[in-house]
Parts: sequence; structure tokens; C-alpha cells
Amino acid sequence: MEKTYYESFERMEQFMAQAFAAIGVPEEDAKICAAVLIESDKRGIDSHGVGRFKPIYIDRINEGIQNPVTQFEVVRETKTTAVVDGHDGMGHVIGVKSMRMAIDKAKEYGMGMVVVRNSTHYSLMAAKEDMISITGTNARPSIAPTFGVENMLGTNPLTIGFPSDEAFPFVLDCATSISQRGKIEHYARIQKQMPEGWVINHNGAPVTDPETALKGFNNGSCALAPLGGIGEELGGYKGYGYATVVEVLSAALQAGTFLKALNGINPDGSKRPYHLGHFFIAIDINAFIPAGEFKKTAGDILRQLRASAKAQGEERIYTAGEKEYLAFLERSKTGIPMNAQVRKSLTDARDQLKVDFRFVWED
Amino acid sequence: MEKTYYESFERMEQFMAQAFAAIGVPEEDAKICAAVLIESDKRGIDSHGVGRFKPIYIDRINEGIQNPVTQFEVVRETKTTAVVDGHDGMGHVIGVKSMRMAIDKAKEYGMGMVVVRNSTHYSLMAAKEDMISITGTNARPSIAPTFGVENMLGTNPLTIGFPSDEAFPFVLDCATSISQRGKIEHYARIQKQMPEGWVINHNGAPVTDPETALKGFNNGSCALAPLGGIGEELGGYKGYGYATVVEVLSAALQAGTFLKALNGINPDGSKRPYHLGHFFIAIDINAFIPAGEFKKTAGDILRQLRASAKAQGEERIYTAGEKEYLAFLERSKTGIPMNAQVRKSLTDARDQLKVDFRFVWED
Repeated sequence: MEKTYYESFERMEQFMAQAFAAIGVPEEDAKICAAVLIESDKRGIDSHGVGRFKPIYIDRINEGIQNPVTQFEVVRETKTTAVVDGHDGMGHVIGVKSMRMAIDKAKEYGMGMVVVRNSTHYSLMAAKEDMISITGTNARPSIAPTFGVENMLGTNPLTIGFPSDEAFPFVLDCATSISQRGKIEHYARIQKQMPEGWVINHNGAPVTDPETALKGFNNGSCALAPLGGIGEELGGYKGYGYATVVEVLSAALQAGTFLKALNGINPDGSKRPYHLGHFFIAIDINAFIPAGEFKKTAGDILRQLRASAKAQGEERIYTAGEKEYLAFLERSKTGIPMNAQVRKSLTDARDQLKVDFRFVWED
Repeated sequence: MEKTYYESFERMEQFMAQAFAAIGVPEEDAKICAAVLIESDKRGIDSHGVGRFKPIYIDRINEGIQNPVTQFEVVRETKTTAVVDGHDGMGHVIGVKSMRMAIDKAKEYGMGMVVVRNSTHYSLMAAKEDMISITGTNARPSIAPTFGVENMLGTNPLTIGFPSDEAFPFVLDCATSISQRGKIEHYARIQKQMPEGWVINHNGAPVTDPETALKGFNNGSCALAPLGGIGEELGGYKGYGYATVVEVLSAALQAGTFLKALNGINPDGSKRPYHLGHFFIAIDINAFIPAGEFKKTAGDILRQLRASAKAQGEERIYTAGEKEYLAFLERSKTGIPMNAQVRKSLTDARDQLKVDFRFVWED
């Protein structure tokens, strides 16, 4: 069996910050990017952590479709609102600064909302300051509308978070599709058929073979189904509706790019920046009620849900953010597991950027 | 075949306003309640219109669990936020006044949010004033959490609306469960089996017989599945997550009642007010971008979605609010169809309240 290697949070955060700096990201911004990326690894969300470092960030900067230097331009601003142009800079820097603006506005006026254009990634900043947050982003087209078959909408996550009196915040961070490409790639690797309903082909029929689905995504003959599935029977129009809301809130408040135009390809076939849009809403709990009271009620609701009767064969009911917290506790002891693919991408990036760093698997 | 009777929007609105006034609702409030109820009939949402007038509103006022006179008390207020106590008054009056407050705050500061306690119903006011609205309400417990079987959460709609350059606004107004009781009652009437996934029994198995489900709701042995279905395979944890968000935003910002305590039954078995909570968020589009530009982009997104490739056998792709607008156009010509059950409930209410009104089926 393949040996499992683990790297600590601190070392990987340090490596990524060094490497980002080496490719031209200003030092402070490099630290922000590394801190946001490592947050995913800490919470067990491997699809968004160090595994993305090389293929998404380093490669895109090398291809010239992402600027390592982020110009954060405030295009329009009122007491509670702002429109920001990220000029195709580092999405994590734009995300953190936007959420910071929304939080500061909410602290002063009770609510804040910042809408961003021309960014290439997004992140949720955990609302550690007694704020409820509602955020969203559009993404390259992949979901088909209800009764449609064409990949029109991004996986468009609608993310909502709030604190409670528990050790971890409630964070519901999920795509408005049932599944997404990363999960289907995983099914392909382990040669497992997908449940009916995740993917639709150009006739409107469900696809269960992951290889067929992945090929279909590339040639446009397959699309993801919205949350609720294909057709209306299981509520697919609801997921489709939420995906549409996120597309509109991300694009229409900042005259941004949308739907098919987010595919990152120029008419001549060359790559271009994704020009994604995001929105960040912060709501100050203390404007309504002392935060301690809110947290107690929220905690009671979450605990009562978990304590309710389980289905046969199920031992546990979770609330959003709990599994990620459990992963964090586990990984705080073990470090981050590094598979062969991630190890190769990180050593490649290290060598390419000539960063002075030695990984544990090289000892 | 049974003859179909139709009543015009104007006549039914007038009748309900008269009848509400006759049972003690102040005249201005009676007009608001009638106007909100008729809005559902106009849009073809028969589950929420005149069909509810007698069994929900008149009967509850008679039972003493709803006050015809609404005290709208502002408990706490900041520039953008407010907490309102509705003192078990008329939900439509509370809803309209709360949304009005949120809109007025948004006009001045860019955003507004009002949270309500002790109300018994909610309504979305269509954002006709260039506002994006996000609203929600908790409800009597009926959804089971993922891996659970107990009815813990309400159908907890998360409703989002915005204007476009089209003849009707985008309004996504849907329960965070796949289905709901009214739809299942309809399946029982037409003796049709439900799709697997709508309802879960106390073992965690899907229930497809609507009679079994309805009996199970009453004795606690069945619950609704969240959007995404039973278990995690089709994303049920996402619908469960959104239902939880709505429960917390509706209750925890106003120290309100939640989950099982919303069942409307005292420990001694007698009925009591539902003590629901709601939240109303208004976001002023003009704070970000001239509303005309937003509406054009939003309209373009909606039109491109509808114009995308259809699944085999499907002739049309809809966007949220479109089917309701089509129903409105149709009913503007025909009036509201009145079935035997609705006709009886309205004549009963009329006779009981001694309102001077003659229905078309009595001519």
C-alpha cells in the first residue's frame, strides 16, 4: 500500500505564501491567499486546498489569465453598499477585502453588501465578528435549466453562515447543483457509477457513467442537474431558481459577464480571464439582539436537530459546518494528507518557482 | 361534469375585505389582508388564496388563536434594521408593514432588514420599487433533517425576488422541502402515488402512498424530505441546510419560538397561536447600479436561459415567476375558478359573518 504523507497546516501555509511571493504576488497578498487556501485543507475540503495551488493558481498566473498583483478598485460606494472591480487579480485577496468592507459597513450601519466584478475566485470568510453572512459567486457554465439540457449556469454556490454558542460556526457552503465536476472525477477514479440525477445528456436523459459525463462536459453534450434533479418532480426548478438568483446577484449589480460568456475562452479559442462576479452580504447580529442571545438560540436549534430521532442504520445527524469541524480536529493532530498527485504538483511548483522548501516526503 | 364558476379579482377582494371587517379586522387592515390573499389567486397559487380564507383566517380568529386587531410594535430599531412584535395579529398586515419598513430603510441607507416575532402568516411583497428582496419564515414542524426521521423543521420557504426589464418580476418562492402537505392532499384526492423521495417514514424509508403520508404527518410517523431528498446522495443535506438557515434567521434574531415548539398545541392539548417568525431583507439596486442597467442584465440572463436547448419532449423552459404571470394573464380574462369546496367555505363565512354579498353561483 502507498505510504500516506502528512504536512502540517503551518508548513503548507508557509510554503504557499513563499511560492505566491516568488511568482509575483505582493507579500501581504501572498499571505492572504495562503491563509484562505489552507483553510480548506484544515476543514477537510480537499477540492479547494493545496490540491488547487499549482493547477489553478500558479498555472493561470503563468498563462497570463490571472494577475498576481491585485488592484482593488472601489467603483461605487454608499453607506452600506459598494461595487468593486478586482481587475482579474487574486480572488482570495479580493474576497477577503470585500468581506472586510461588508463587515465594516454592517458594524456601522447594521448591514453591508459588496459586489465584485472581474475576479477569478471567491471565498467565504468565516463570520467571526458576530455577523450573519450571505455570499455567492457565479462560475463557468455547467448546470442545465429545468427542462433544458445545455450547460448555462455555474455551480453558483449560495453560502450562508452564522455563529452559535458551539465550538464552530454554522457554514452552509454548497453548489446549487446536486454534484460537481470534482466529485464526478473522484467517481471516475474509483470506477463507480453515479446516482441517477446528477448529470443530464443532450436528450435530457440521466447519465450514470462518470467517464461519459466528463467527456460530455468537455464537448457540451452533458450538463449538471440542479439541486432537486432533472425535471420538476423532485423540485429541480428550486435548485435551478437558486442558481439563477446567484447568477443575477453576482452579475447584474455590477454590469458583469454571465452564463455562457463565463467559459474563459475567446472567440479565437485562446484562454481569457473568467471575469467572475461575487456578492458578499454581512448582517450585524447585535443590531437586532445581543449576539449572545442569538448564539444560544441558534445553538439550541442545532442541538435539537442533532438530537432528533435517527433513521434506521444512521447513527448521527449533522448540522452544516460540523463535518468540517471534525475534520479540523482530526487534521490538527495528523496534518494534511498529501496524495501522489498533490505531492507532484507541489514539488513541480516549488522547483519551477525556485522556492527554498523541503517537503516531508523528501526526508 | 361539474360546472365551473368564476369570480372576478375585484369582487373576491371586495368580499374578503368586507368579511374581514365584519369579524373585527380594522377597515384599512382588512383591505391589506384581502389584497395579499387575492394576489395568490391572481397568480394561480390556489393553495394560498380564497381557499384559505375561511379555514385559516376566519376559523382561527373565531378560535381565539389569532387577533383580528394587529398591534405592530417596533421593539428595536437601527438605521437599517428593526425587530417587530406582531402580537399574534394578522400576518398579512405585519408582513406588508415590515416589508415597507425594510424598503424605506433600503431607500435611505441602501439595505434594510426587519425581523418579526409572534406573527401567524407571511407574505412576499413584490419588489416593485427597484429592490431585491430576500425573505423567509419558519412554520409548523414537518421536515426531517438528513439521516433523521422526525418532523423538526418547517417547510421554511427562502424567497428571493428581483425586477427585470420583462413584464413580470423574478420571484422564487418555494419551500425548502421537495413537496408540501397541500400537494400531497391533491395526490390523495386524485388517488395518485407520490414520487419516491417526497416523504420519509419513522424507519427512514420513502413513502409513496399519499394517504399513508397524511396519516403519518398527523401521528408523527412521517415527515417531509428536504429539497435534495432522503440521505445525502442527491444533496438532501443542502435543502436541510437551507431549511435550518431559515429557521435560525426567523427565530434567533428575535428570541423567538422554533422547531417543535411551533406546533400550535399547548401541553394540555389545546390550540395556541403559532408564534411564527419572519425576516424581510430589502436591497436597493440603485445603490449599486442604475436600476435600468440591472433590469436589462437580469432580463438578458432570464431570456438566454429560456432560449437554451430543450430536453427531448420539452417545449419550453421557464424562469421563476413566469408560470404565475401566465396564470395571471389567463385569470385576468376568466376570473378565479371556484371549486365546490371553496364555494361552500365562502358562503359559510358570508352567512356566519352576515356580510351582504351574493356570489356568481347563486345567480
